[in-house]
Amino acid sequence: MMLINGVPAEQIAATDRGLHYGDGLFETIAVRHGQLLLWRRHWRRLVDGCVRLGLPVPDENDMLAEARAVCAGRERAVVKIIVTRGAGDRGYRMPSVVAPNRVVLATAWPVHPASHATAGVVVRVCSMRLGRNRLLAGIKHLNRLEQVLARAEWSDESVAEGLLLDDSDHVIEATAANVFFVHGTLLVTPSVVQCGIAGVIRELILERAARLGFAVRVGAVTLADVWKADEIFLTNSVIGVWPVRRVECGQIAYAKQSTEIARTVAADIRACSEEEIEDSNSG
Amino acid sequence: MMLINGVPAEQIAATDRGLHYGDGLFETIAVRHGQLLLWRRHWRRLVDGCVRLGLPVPDENDMLAEARAVCAGRERAVVKIIVTRGAGDRGYRMPSVVAPNRVVLATAWPVHPASHATAGVVVRVCSMRLGRNRLLAGIKHLNRLEQVLARAEWSDESVAEGLLLDDSDHVIEATAANVFFVHGTLLVTPSVVQCGIAGVIRELILERAARLGFAVRVGAVTLADVWKADEIFLTNSVIGVWPVRRVECGQIAYAKQSTEIARTVAADIRACSEEEIEDSNSG
Repeated sequence: MMLINGVPAEQIAATDRGLHYGDGLFETIAVRHGQLLLWRRHWRRLVDGCVRLGLPVPDENDMLAEARAVCAGRERAVVKIIVTRGAGDRGYRMPSVVAPNRVVLATAWPVHPASHATAGVVVRVCSMRLGRNRLLAGIKHLNRLEQVLARAEWSDESVAEGLLLDDSDHVIEATAANVFFVHGTLLVTPSVVQCGIAGVIRELILERAARLGFAVRVGAVTLADVWKADEIFLTNSVIGVWPVRRVECGQIAYAKQSTEIARTVAADIRACSEEEIEDSNSG
Repeated sequence: MMLINGVPAEQIAATDRGLHYGDGLFETIAVRHGQLLLWRRHWRRLVDGCVRLGLPVPDENDMLAEARAVCAGRERAVVKIIVTRGAGDRGYRMPSVVAPNRVVLATAWPVHPASHATAGVVVRVCSMRLGRNRLLAGIKHLNRLEQVLARAEWSDESVAEGLLLDDSDHVIEATAANVFFVHGTLLVTPSVVQCGIAGVIRELILERAARLGFAVRVGAVTLADVWKADEIFLTNSVIGVWPVRRVECGQIAYAKQSTEIARTVAADIRACSEEEIEDSNSG
């Protein structure tokens, strides 16, 4: 089911700046037990993105009602929200009066092998390099050609994700997930100040790490850190936490023996997400 | 008038990857005397972009017929063509079978003060810095948030354009135009191998410079080169060539006294564009 500005519809004006320029942003929200997980975190990030892009902030009650409506009656689903700057005249200049469009849709919960969450996944290092732009970094905006090109680098079904580096050879994220590196009791995740997306699960892990007995560091990560890490795991709102069991880089592959810490973090995040359902219902 | 896949329409499926990811590209073509100027150059760039993004190349006869149809009966207009990767499932992965969508529309010819082409325009140096990505550089793709943010830096109507630097402080282009710097009999324009768009008029000037008695250099340009240049001019398919009479950078402004070479190049490009109309008609 899809709602456009609150009305059931499947098409959007072809003059929309979302289409012409990718002028807008999105959220992808997991639905479990019919509930929107971590709603308030997604909402806060959407608001932050709107503020940074100079987009009017939609009404939270409308947005939440629409998100609930599209997944009503579904035990599991993925809800996607898109907010664009709406129709505009020709040219990059923002319209003097912006009438944003919002698209809210639900899609089926993706089916992945159960082993992805237990034994872990295989990832490859992509050759596509992320460009750096501080004004766009962190935001879940609609300019995603880099991710599209990176994901097109492989079709081997045994490879679940691709690691993306920036043009200074720093590891930043996966094509559709954030990434953490475990060094003893230290969790390291790349900074997303220059590029990358500030994921909701990434933020949650950074907040909860101390309770689980981990220190955290957000900063520069190189491929050498990838090889040296005791464990690596991927995070996003739909997969939760996936341990990485193997990293492929050209003809070389590095195996990771342990998935213990990833699974500890995964269990915590899962429980925490279900607690924050309550928060969404009262939001 | 607007055609979507050859049919009069104003809406596009909200599942289109052009909206979700900016997964596609566009062309902006000037119509003068009811003719599509420089059609073959626009078409060739569209094909190059499709090849680089792994998009199926549309049929040229269809595309040309649609471009002619939307501007039929108009003396002057701007035709915009958008090609997207079409509808897709959730996720960055390209669909196994791609059904591209093409949107072709005509908009009114923009009205600018006549002095823009004669006395020249005022430009400002934007603070937004272009990210660098070799895989996307040169392509007129739909990921244009950088240009949207840069164009939002000023609302003063007396400023016609903004100069964009990359994150290494090289001057690359304007928000919606390429830029040339005149040093004696040398025309310099920034490389678009790391970022920026390979404009059709830019290409034409590089080809024709020798005939006009100029040497050309494509390479790195810094702000120091901006101050030192005898003349600066902007180019795109709609404006043709605009001399720059003043560059503003924060509180400092640099005036350029001469517009002679810009106007010589402008006249040549204008004549040449009208010659290449014939080419479009036989295309």
